[in-house]
Amino acid sequence: MDRGPMNYDAFFDAAISGLKTEQRYRVFANLERDARRFPYATWRPDGPDAPAREVAIWCSNDYLTMGGHDKVIEAVVDAARRHGAGAGGTRNISGTHHPIVELETELADLHHKESALAFTSGWISNLAAISTIAQLLPNCLIISDALNHNSMIEGVRRSGCEKVVFRHNDMAHLEELLKAAGDRAKLVVFESLYSMDGDIAPVARIAELARQYNAFTYVDEVHAVGMYGPRGGGICEREGVMDQIDVIEGTLAKGFGTLGGYIAAKANIIDAVRSFAPSFIFTTTLPPTVAAGACAAVRHLKSSGEERARHQRQAALTKHALSAAGLPVMENPSHIVPLMVGDADLCKKASDLLLERHSIYIQPINYPTVAVGTERLRITPTPRHTDEQIGQLVEALVDVWHTLRLPFNSAEIVPLRLPETGREHCVYPEMKRAAE
Amino acid sequence: MDRGPMNYDAFFDAAISGLKTEQRYRVFANLERDARRFPYATWRPDGPDAPAREVAIWCSNDYLTMGGHDKVIEAVVDAARRHGAGAGGTRNISGTHHPIVELETELADLHHKESALAFTSGWISNLAAISTIAQLLPNCLIISDALNHNSMIEGVRRSGCEKVVFRHNDMAHLEELLKAAGDRAKLVVFESLYSMDGDIAPVARIAELARQYNAFTYVDEVHAVGMYGPRGGGICEREGVMDQIDVIEGTLAKGFGTLGGYIAAKANIIDAVRSFAPSFIFTTTLPPTVAAGACAAVRHLKSSGEERARHQRQAALTKHALSAAGLPVMENPSHIVPLMVGDADLCKKASDLLLERHSIYIQPINYPTVAVGTERLRITPTPRHTDEQIGQLVEALVDVWHTLRLPFNSAEIVPLRLPETGREHCVYPEMKRAAE
Repeated sequence: MDRGPMNYDAFFDAAISGLKTEQRYRVFANLERDARRFPYATWRPDGPDAPAREVAIWCSNDYLTMGGHDKVIEAVVDAARRHGAGAGGTRNISGTHHPIVELETELADLHHKESALAFTSGWISNLAAISTIAQLLPNCLIISDALNHNSMIEGVRRSGCEKVVFRHNDMAHLEELLKAAGDRAKLVVFESLYSMDGDIAPVARIAELARQYNAFTYVDEVHAVGMYGPRGGGICEREGVMDQIDVIEGTLAKGFGTLGGYIAAKANIIDAVRSFAPSFIFTTTLPPTVAAGACAAVRHLKSSGEERARHQRQAALTKHALSAAGLPVMENPSHIVPLMVGDADLCKKASDLLLERHSIYIQPINYPTVAVGTERLRITPTPRHTDEQIGQLVEALVDVWHTLRLPFNSAEIVPLRLPETGREHCVYPEMKRAAE
Repeated sequence: MDRGPMNYDAFFDAAISGLKTEQRYRVFANLERDARRFPYATWRPDGPDAPAREVAIWCSNDYLTMGGHDKVIEAVVDAARRHGAGAGGTRNISGTHHPIVELETELADLHHKESALAFTSGWISNLAAISTIAQLLPNCLIISDALNHNSMIEGVRRSGCEKVVFRHNDMAHLEELLKAAGDRAKLVVFESLYSMDGDIAPVARIAELARQYNAFTYVDEVHAVGMYGPRGGGICEREGVMDQIDVIEGTLAKGFGTLGGYIAAKANIIDAVRSFAPSFIFTTTLPPTVAAGACAAVRHLKSSGEERARHQRQAALTKHALSAAGLPVMENPSHIVPLMVGDADLCKKASDLLLERHSIYIQPINYPTVAVGTERLRITPTPRHTDEQIGQLVEALVDVWHTLRLPFNSAEIVPLRLPETGREHCVYPEMKRAAE
């Protein structure tokens, strides 16, 4: 379409060129996952002549591989055959199907709250819930952690309320801001587990400060639900403070292996969000298949601690082996294993080399997901990655680090307490020999 | 939690009370749909002692009942068994699975565009695409139809760009605004089929004006894709102007029976939205099950016109019978059958009576979905509603109208041309006798 003076195409082309120049252009890898053979998947490179290849995925956010669990898959299959492939409408327009009602009951029970509400994504749950709650509280001040996820920041912005930011996980700063706010309505929004660094918030202390200064609390537990706490209720369950946090937001797309986000809270809060948030009101409900699959995952993880234990073991083993090989793994108390590169171009090159030479897929994490200069590979070991596969990963990364002349730390062999023996081991030297 | 002077609970309680006073409080009906027996579903009223009942659904947005189509269900089942229940990550973080790539290829082909992009909902596709496109065009003026859907308005607002509104489907007003805007970038956003009144936009004239005044065009076809055009490409396909509209937005949750939204456009536009929209970047991909189900529905409807023909026949028959019975059906050229009530309380009562006395489920449509004073029942006949069921619906509505003393029109028997005979019939009197 030639339309004279205003050349619309040129603006889109320029925007894309800019991203490429800044090394921020992202290429999505076309991966065909095999539910039975995780972490292996078929990778189809772009281009008609590039043959498909088998690769091992090391960056899935299906942290416990519940998306491939038999109970979950069979719940999906059963719901598809019984109820069909879609919900057929928004929640109000005939879309409130029985499986979504059951799922919400299960989620409320998981967090010991009166009620829960499911959304089509975690992004939408934060947008809808934070903005709606803040708008319903007159003259509300939002007090937000500096490293909160994009979706929380979007919810804060959308509310139009005044906002102050406390330094990441800095309790003295949070207290200062709470005190300065005085008697007005205060909404503290934070995450329990920050997904890029893998650090954990002092949730008990936040709850204590909120009580002391009479603030309303909203926690994002998306990287923790299913994975922490005796029933998978998250970090707040593990720390025994679920009842002291007003709203718990979680996801069905990570620990629970399916799709969607949710909030759990007192019934009047859920009723208000349900009634006022346009992003909820005007969106088709999650299909019965997704609700039934998620419900099966939540139920299973309430009673089974096996996946959680194995997950923590494999994450700890990966960190141990990376450190022992001198690779710059960032220390943290969680299942996230970040490997620092610190440069967008080198991070992309490391990821490409890992894929092409070693058939290992770990996408580069760059801006806007992390700050410029902190680009990294973010490794997420699952219960289904074997010890042998961890050994292969570490050897592949050592090769990539040498090839790209990336800096090594001095190797540090920190013994690891393995749950099956109860003893400390230096596992990595043996893994290395086995991989050779 | 007693927290002194600031009683947070009271604000949520007050907000809910306000909705109840204004007759705007919504109750979601818990419906268990049976894929094989649509329109019948099991309704579970609230309360422990209320027994479950079988009801007939007459307000589904799964317009063609593709959510219950064997090909779609088996595609979901197959994808669940092969790939598992979830995508495992965002598009960039290992979540670009093969079924979503196939779906996007299919959607691009449906609209004869270079590329397509799938989102978790239509609401998000409008939010993400309209705001991103407008922001990338310098000094962009958005020219928006007065009756655009909430999600489009959200996208317009989020862009932060200047906006002007043209009177609904008023081409003289649109031209006036285009002319007044001069040489600057202009983005015209509109729907092809407005879902509450069922009227259709003059898409060919909009495309012509956009070309004449060098404007960029964005159409929402969510209530038309799958249902109009020789391959289900929507109203723009039917009118032969798909190539003259820059961006076509559609849904997978209505005509295609599953979940999600999408846009189709030139590759550089898709690449820009994919790269810049936070609501896309930070959201887990639709599961392989949903993508495979949607893809099966799109493919089937590209080659089969049977569902579209039967859909139009049943909608026309419903309108014919409602008019003949003197019920105030709003005339329009589409498959939407709005029955005007004009009062929130009476609309709710009509819906309740229909459900309780006649086991027919049509939820009341009230503010904010439609303007105050235009509350209505919105009926959506599908290809699977039989002629006999249409007769039962009309008789039930006549009873409700009498019971609530709602006004009737003078009965108007407009003959109906039935596709199977090619002749005009006055079908309603016979349907009435059969229902008695």
